[in-house]
This record gives sequence, C-alpha cells and structure tokens, in this order.
Amino acid sequence: MVLNPLFNFNAYFKEMKSTSLAIGVDVGGTNTKYGVVNHRGEILDEGAVATTLFPTIEAFVDGLYERLLPMINKFGKDGNIKGIGIGAPNGNHFTGCIENAPNLHWKGVVPIAKLISEKFKIPCVLNNDAKAAALGELNFGAAKGMKDFIMITLGTGVGSGIVVNGGLLYGDKGNAGELGHTVIRPGGREHWSTGLKGTLESYCSATGIAITAVEMKKDAKEDTLLKNYDDKDITSKIVYECATKGDALAKKVYEFTGEILGEALANFVMFSSPEAIILFGGVIQAGDLLMNPAKKAMEEHLLITFKDQVQLLFSELKFADAAILGASTLVWG
Amino acid sequence: MVLNPLFNFNAYFKEMKSTSLAIGVDVGGTNTKYGVVNHRGEILDEGAVATTLFPTIEAFVDGLYERLLPMINKFGKDGNIKGIGIGAPNGNHFTGCIENAPNLHWKGVVPIAKLISEKFKIPCVLNNDAKAAALGELNFGAAKGMKDFIMITLGTGVGSGIVVNGGLLYGDKGNAGELGHTVIRPGGREHWSTGLKGTLESYCSATGIAITAVEMKKDAKEDTLLKNYDDKDITSKIVYECATKGDALAKKVYEFTGEILGEALANFVMFSSPEAIILFGGVIQAGDLLMNPAKKAMEEHLLITFKDQVQLLFSELKFADAAILGASTLVWG
Repeated sequence: MVLNPLFNFNAYFKEMKSTSLAIGVDVGGTNTKYGVVNHRGEILDEGAVATTLFPTIEAFVDGLYERLLPMINKFGKDGNIKGIGIGAPNGNHFTGCIENAPNLHWKGVVPIAKLISEKFKIPCVLNNDAKAAALGELNFGAAKGMKDFIMITLGTGVGSGIVVNGGLLYGDKGNAGELGHTVIRPGGREHWSTGLKGTLESYCSATGIAITAVEMKKDAKEDTLLKNYDDKDITSKIVYECATKGDALAKKVYEFTGEILGEALANFVMFSSPEAIILFGGVIQAGDLLMNPAKKAMEEHLLITFKDQVQLLFSELKFADAAILGASTLVWG
Repeated sequence: MVLNPLFNFNAYFKEMKSTSLAIGVDVGGTNTKYGVVNHRGEILDEGAVATTLFPTIEAFVDGLYERLLPMINKFGKDGNIKGIGIGAPNGNHFTGCIENAPNLHWKGVVPIAKLISEKFKIPCVLNNDAKAAALGELNFGAAKGMKDFIMITLGTGVGSGIVVNGGLLYGDKGNAGELGHTVIRPGGREHWSTGLKGTLESYCSATGIAITAVEMKKDAKEDTLLKNYDDKDITSKIVYECATKGDALAKKVYEFTGEILGEALANFVMFSSPEAIILFGGVIQAGDLLMNPAKKAMEEHLLITFKDQVQLLFSELKFADAAILGASTLVWG
C-alpha cells in the first residue's frame, strides 16, 4: 500500500489491537486449561482437559490441537490470533522448554513451545506458571499500573513472579523468583521433594499447612475438630473449614503459617522494595485467618524504612480464569 | 557550527568522552574520600578528610569545596568535569537526600546533592554507598560485562547493591537491596541499632564477627589466642590475625560466619538468579577462611536448578579506590 501522509497510524494500530486475540494455556500437574482471550482480558471461550490423559508431550500437543481447533476456526478466521501463551511449572521463557518439572509426568527437558508452534503454525511463548500469573495480575488484576511488585502463589507448592521496573525479573538464566525454596526456618522441616530444610514451601503451601495441622493435632492437649479426621485425610481445606467453625487449633495452624509467611515477605521486601505483595492461589481462601498474622509478622520484621509502605493484597483475578489470562498475556509481552 | 555531512560523529563523541572527567565522593561515617576520575576508571588525583570534622552538612559542603577546588582548577579548566557522584550511607538516588543515616552525625533528611550542586555549580548525583560500589564493580571490576549480579559489602555493617538487566535495582521507593537486614536466624542475635533479630548484619559484619568471637571465647574449653585480649578489644581484624596464626577457635568464628553468609546468599540467588555474587569490604580480607564455608553453605541450600551455576567472587577493585570509583560512575549513569 502507498501511504497517505495523513494516514492515521494511531487509529490503525488501535483497530488492529482491538481485533487481536491470544490463546492462553495453563499446564498444571492435574489439568490443563485453555481459552481464547482478547486484549481487554475477556475470555471469549475456554475449556479444560486432564494433563495426565497424555502419556507423551507429543500426544498432549495433538490432543490440545484437536480441542483448540474449533475455537481457532471460530475466532481466528482472519488470522487475528497473534500467539499462544503457555504457563507451565518449570517453564523456561528463554529456552521454550519445561525443564525437569517435578509435578508433571513428562520427564526431562520438554521443548513444548517449539512443538506447539510447529503443530499450530502460530507463534508460541512459554513461561513459568507463577510468572504468567504475575503478568496476568499486572495486566488485568490488582497490580495494574504497578512497576514493582511480587506475586506469591500459595497452592500445592509456593511459586512467585517478581516484577521490577514494570517487567518480569528473569535473572541470568531465566530462573529468578524461586521464593518458595528460600530458607526461612534454618534446619527446620525437610521438604518432601527438594530435601531442603525449612523452606517457605515446606510450611506455607497447602501441603505444608496439612503437615503443620497433623503435627499440632498430635501434640494438642485441647479438644479439636481435627481429631475427627485421620492424619492422611487432613488437607488445608479441612483445616480452613475447622477454623471457620471456630476451632482454636485450626486457627493456630493458620497463625503459625501466616507468621512464617510474613517473616519471609519482610525479607523479600528488603530485597526488591516492591509497592505491593500480591497473594494468589488456593491457600488464600483462608482470607484474614492467614492475612492478619502475615501482615503483622511482615511489619515486625521490616527495617523502619519499609514499615507501613508495602501493600499486602489478595489477587483480584477470578481464580479459575487467572491461569488462562496470565498465560494469554505472554503473547502481548 | 555548521555541520559538514561527512563530519565524523563517532570520533567527535569518543574524543569528548575521553576528555570528560567525574568527581567521586564517598561519604563514610569516619572519613570522606574524594577524587577526580576519567572514564577509564583512572583516579587522576585524590584526597580524604574526616567527616566528623564538620558539625553541619553546610560546613561539610564548604570544606569539601575548599579541598576540591584546586583539583577542579587543575583538571576542569575546559568545563570537562561532567558531574559529582556521591556515595553515602542511606543515600537516596531519587530524592538526592541522605535519609536518617544511623552512622552519620548529621541527623534527619540531608539534601546533600542539592547543596553540593549549588555550591559547586556542577550537577551532582547521589546514591547509596553499596549501590555505588556495585556500579564501580560493573564498570571497572569483577562484574564487567555482567547483567545480573549482587554486590555484598561486608564492613562495619552489611550493605548490598543488586544489578538486574544491566542496571541497579531500586524498587518502588529507591530502597531495594537492604540485604544486611534480612533475617537469616529467626529469633537470633538482636541487632545493636535496628533491634531486628537474627539479621545477616548481626552476624556477618565486622561488628557481628567480633560479637561471635567474644561469645565463643566465653564458652570455649580449649585454649585460644583470643584469651589474650579483653572482650572490648576484640575486632574482626584480631580474629583474622589469630586465625592466620592457626588458632582453632578463631577459625571456627569464620566457619560460623561463612556458613550463615552462605545460607543467606542461597536465598538471594533464588530471588534474582544472578550470574555472580561479589563480596567486598574489610571483612573479605579473611579470604578463604570466609569464602570456603560460605561457598559450601550456599551450594547446600540451593535448589538443584541453581547448583554450580553462580560464581562467588571477591571484588577486583583496590579497596581504597573502590569507593571513589564507585561514586564517580554515578556520573556516567
């Protein structure tokens, strides 16, 4: 096309952006969620499939293609699907590979971005799931407009995505932000898969909370609803339910967890001086039971310069959507 | 000037840069060092004055002016002194103020950059002393060419400067990198000025090492050279001297210190995934006595992804020059 010097570039690009779509895929140990998302963060269509259904990564890519094709045909007729963003545990943004993810059954180094872009003929960007969640929060959630914040995902494990100067922190080899594995109780509880002692994940993940509950129940002299459950059946959800029924021991589990979390957060604040820390994931359903002791412990362990400066917030993304949204934002960059 | 289209801009700017000079000023609790530095990091002239000589910041600025004027007249005749860079404890790069520095006798918020630029009629840039040292290392030392590294200064206190994506990490309010105040022994030794318990500085500063030595000496059943000294006379330097004479207890002090340092470094690595950690300051004169246990403890506490990936180095800057060099690099940006 020959450009008219009066051609309105701004309007042209705005229009182009408004019709651009991205596919977001969140690969989890149990389920994979996917959806078509526009640049306003609206999910136009979505679906989910069991990750464990596919013994090999190749079978997974084929299965995903089969399920996404109808969506692509429906929304992407004019080639306006700009890319596929994937969030996955141990996803390395720079290599496009899932690298030795302990909670996925595909072992070793899995070149997922290459396989998907070849199959779909659409550019594919991979990132760590917690980093993707941080981008989702930055673009559509509680961190909108923030340049420096830390996203902590409290689920089966503890993940994190750190944003500095308005962008994700990757570090030298792309692995920055493994905050779940930092030591907060030296010589403390041994982690079930890493073998590291006293790490944040050992205590503040859903798994860690269940272990704490079992330990406290064993030592408890007082009566507690937790005694109605076998040790092996106790989950963080059950602890939460007992706490909401007023059970003192269950509440104590969250106080203990929140205190450790808060101490760790104080250390993180003194590292990167964020505007906010945003908590995300299944564990945050505990709400104030976790937030109050965490906030108190964080403030107590901060150098005076940082006191009352950092917001401690819950994610504003709808839990089920967050993973897809976060992954889709990888496409917009 | 009317530009010839064949004018060689590259040569012109190269020439301009080669004649540009910066003044570096390192404000310490005891002494202030200053010097004229060229862009290759060569100190053309330097001097020092006792900081404590000046009861007020205004008197300090006047005194500094008096001492620097002969250098400015000698080297800056053609207006080629581009700026004055100041490194100071609690120096805030964004406000140009020293903010409540516990180890300076000028209390409160001191607008040092404004006062100096007004007095000298030369632009003045302020930064935290550890951040300035990190820039010095980046431009002229062991971190040359690195994009992600952490500088830890082990002196009377423990400071740090964190470089990510090739630039200093400031965070939301400019205070990122207070790693000396992160907790590494929860509920441990109370810090003499912050009141925080079990922080890195409580153990791994020169002050902390002396405290450890006194504690270990008290409990020691074995004979030790440290028993030749009164508690109040024991410094990290004396501990070092005893250790080099083969004193077992003095060596144990450094093992204990190095172990705590290494554990903290592992946490920092899992935060920002640096290519290297560079140690700097008086305490590193202990060399391998400190480095060996630190390296061992760091590797032991790292997630497998990070093991054997991160270099642990000593600064390559000559100790006496580093402060001036670091401060001067603030001018080049």
